[in-house]
Amino acid sequence: MLTLYGDLDSGNVYKVRLLLAQLGIACRRVDTTQNRGETASAEFRAINPIGKIPTIVFDDGRMLSESGAILYFLARDTAYLPADAWDQANVLRWMFFEQYSHEPYIAVNRHWKLHLPLAEQSRLADRIAHNHTRGEHALAVMEQRLRNSAWLATGCYTVADIALYAYTHTANDGGFELGPCSGIRAWLNRVRAQPGHIPQVQEEQGVPSSGGVAKAVTAWTLRLPGPPTQFPLP
Amino acid sequence: MLTLYGDLDSGNVYKVRLLLAQLGIACRRVDTTQNRGETASAEFRAINPIGKIPTIVFDDGRMLSESGAILYFLARDTAYLPADAWDQANVLRWMFFEQYSHEPYIAVNRHWKLHLPLAEQSRLADRIAHNHTRGEHALAVMEQRLRNSAWLATGCYTVADIALYAYTHTANDGGFELGPCSGIRAWLNRVRAQPGHIPQVQEEQGVPSSGGVAKAVTAWTLRLPGPPTQFPLP
Repeated sequence: MLTLYGDLDSGNVYKVRLLLAQLGIACRRVDTTQNRGETASAEFRAINPIGKIPTIVFDDGRMLSESGAILYFLARDTAYLPADAWDQANVLRWMFFEQYSHEPYIAVNRHWKLHLPLAEQSRLADRIAHNHTRGEHALAVMEQRLRNSAWLATGCYTVADIALYAYTHTANDGGFELGPCSGIRAWLNRVRAQPGHIPQVQEEQGVPSSGGVAKAVTAWTLRLPGPPTQFPLP
Repeated sequence: MLTLYGDLDSGNVYKVRLLLAQLGIACRRVDTTQNRGETASAEFRAINPIGKIPTIVFDDGRMLSESGAILYFLARDTAYLPADAWDQANVLRWMFFEQYSHEPYIAVNRHWKLHLPLAEQSRLADRIAHNHTRGEHALAVMEQRLRNSAWLATGCYTVADIALYAYTHTANDGGFELGPCSGIRAWLNRVRAQPGHIPQVQEEQGVPSSGGVAKAVTAWTLRLPGPPTQFPLP
């Protein structure tokens, strides 16, 4: 069975969990979070030298990280990744856009606002303001596209939509106001309505969050999902 | 003929120029730089709403941006992108790593050190130090891989190597010391020795940097390449 390293709070991990759920692929998840320093541990670096989640490990020992690469690999030859070369290029275009121009601002501000004490947030006020401006530009790019198209990359729901949904649907946690973005809000609802959709804070159905843990990570803490910290838009 | 928007100073643009040179694909380059605010202009936003370089436009009007997506698309069915699905996933893994964990630190510090007045660099000292730490981690990840492998993603030179070469070979511009990184230095030399390699500051052979400019961009300044600002490692 596939092993996924990552925590429920991470949007990057959620992308992989959502696709796995929609593909009907079972996995065991080893709760691994940057917040507790676990991704920097020697145990995890032995699995993934880059020390990043999500990381997936197949039964034969092959490891893959980077959410975009994982999504692309798992979605090949499925409805979530069109076979056409130009369509695939546009899927990748939006996924690279997400990792470079969206996530570093929207996810980081969310993380800081959810997890840092107010005094620390005050110290980072300039960075937060900078991220806010950049994040708003990313949302404006999405809004422009989604006012004229049901989906981001092609004519259908793809892993590009999964990749952008992950941190856009919780953007309000980071202080981003989606009220004026009617295109994005309608798209969020379309994504939620897709068959097999799971909310970020819901554990994968039928998949134990503990048990079956790889030897190298038995020392790690396994947690049940905590209370929801994200709220869907009204 | 393919049109490429971007400038010679950008490593992200260089990735595309290098692959085009190695594929023997002619293009006309429209010199477009963020430094002069051109990527934020209404003219350029009409071509690419995201306002990023490199952007390529085909004769039939199709536009593609994000260096990773462009490399992947152009390299399909060539020696620069293996056909095997797992190999492709690993190529993408390194390309996403570059855009998220390497370029934002190594390229940004290079940009600041090359282009900002010293007083402004002093004001950004904390950010530069933060980027330096993160950039050193990215280089350590590369070094660990390249001490055991000739190439990053697979057993041969791929677009993953092109993507990482672009800002690694000028990392010393940003204050990164590659002296101890024997694996990276040997790999840089292997990349330079590949057939059709062009240095970053060399204009593509036989491709005019002016002339044939699309109507929408005729108002832009077209520059000949300036003096070299990057120096290969000894």
